[in-house]
Amino acid sequence: MEGLRQRLVEFAAARRWEPFHTPKNLAAALSVEAGELLEIFQWLTPEQAAAVMSDPERAHRVRDEVADVLAYLVQFCTAVGVDPLEALAAKIERNQHRFPVPEEAVDVNPDVG
Amino acid sequence: MEGLRQRLVEFAAARRWEPFHTPKNLAAALSVEAGELLEIFQWLTPEQAAAVMSDPERAHRVRDEVADVLAYLVQFCTAVGVDPLEALAAKIERNQHRFPVPEEAVDVNPDVG
Amino acid sequence: MEGLRQRLVEFAAARRWEPFHTPKNLAAALSVEAGELLEIFQWLTPEQAAAVMSDPERAHRVRDEVADVLAYLVQFCTAVGVDPLEALAAKIERNQHRFPVPEEAVDVNPDVG
Amino acid sequence: MEGLRQRLVEFAAARRWEPFHTPKNLAAALSVEAGELLEIFQWLTPEQAAAVMSDPERAHRVRDEVADVLAYLVQFCTAVGVDPLEALAAKIERNQHRFPVPEEAVDVNPDVG
Repeated sequence: MEGLRQRLVEFAAARRWEPFHTPKNLAAALSVEAGELLEIFQWLTPEQAAAVMSDPERAHRVRDEVADVLAYLVQFCTAVGVDPLEALAAKIERNQHRFPVPEEAVDVNPDVG
Repeated sequence: MEGLRQRLVEFAAARRWEPFHTPKNLAAALSVEAGELLEIFQWLTPEQAAAVMSDPERAHRVRDEVADVLAYLVQFCTAVGVDPLEALAAKIERNQHRFPVPEEAVDVNPDVG
Repeated sequence: MEGLRQRLVEFAAARRWEPFHTPKNLAAALSVEAGELLEIFQWLTPEQAAAVMSDPERAHRVRDEVADVLAYLVQFCTAVGVDPLEALAAKIERNQHRFPVPEEAVDVNPDVG
Repeated sequence: MEGLRQRLVEFAAARRWEPFHTPKNLAAALSVEAGELLEIFQWLTPEQAAAVMSDPERAHRVRDEVADVLAYLVQFCTAVGVDPLEALAAKIERNQHRFPVPEEAVDVNPDVG
């Protein structure tokens, strides 16, 4: 992760893109890329969606959009000085209290957001 | 990363959330959370956005939404069998060819999407 | 539509919100609200999603988010000087050429995007 | 509006797209298109964003994405039986109570979401 973060920093610096990489712009770009990932699935039936990686062209798009989302997330975190792994670890802790494991787990819709 | 991935898998399993964690639902959830991160910035001036982490309440929201985005990205990748770090490394390689470093870097808008 | 547009203009003016209602901010806000609409559906099964309006609390949220999306779309269009109905009429024309009606319509995934 | 709604219904019916036009899919598509509209602005400076319509290619993309957002919003509303203009009128009423006009309007960030 840290190695990839460094490469993204150098990539942007070499192309003089830092002035564009403000927190607000990167948050927008992250949201746009997450939309592009969702686009792959928007008309797929649950069955087609479950088999998305067995279609080579769709599989490539999925990997490509995953990479874009992660790239902008990492760049956003660099811009605001947040460690995403630390943030996630802290959130999992909080969610363990918010969503205690049910005695007998029931089939309810989740919401960890 | 792998440790956090495991904890997310166990977290969802203990609460019997796996039936909801289809690739399509997780892609939607990822996009929703990216929107919530963007929401923090939507009315901020560039100056306010740059100082977002010096406001404790906003800083907490930023960390919280970063965690949600990363959580759903990791869970999505688990559901489709993609390694996000590998996907990002491959994308950086491709982008190095798509966006060669300019002799004299000019001030143009980037697009690594 | 024009009446509602006028009310939105006056609403923002009375609260001195115009400086914030730049095209870029309004495009971000529109995207955020579309995410909030999607959030209602993210974990629903197709059956639950189809019956969304028979749950009074969900029905209220749906109407509320539809209103937000339309409000920001109208305000965005005002900010950039676009007539959304005209833009849609022109797009339908273009799509009639892009997607001719099949002799025998087949069951393929649509994409009018 | 009603005329355009009818044309969209006929357009989808002629191409047998109705099975794909579930509320959940249309909410996803709406969010994706809102992201595409935002994409136009993501790297633009406030000055460039304000002048977006004086660039013919960008102006065309803006009109195109506005049309897509409105199309999916109208189709979503048809699928769930909501009148978007009525929903917006009701929301404006509610917001007039939530956000009373300040005696002396101050320069605070808005949030009508």
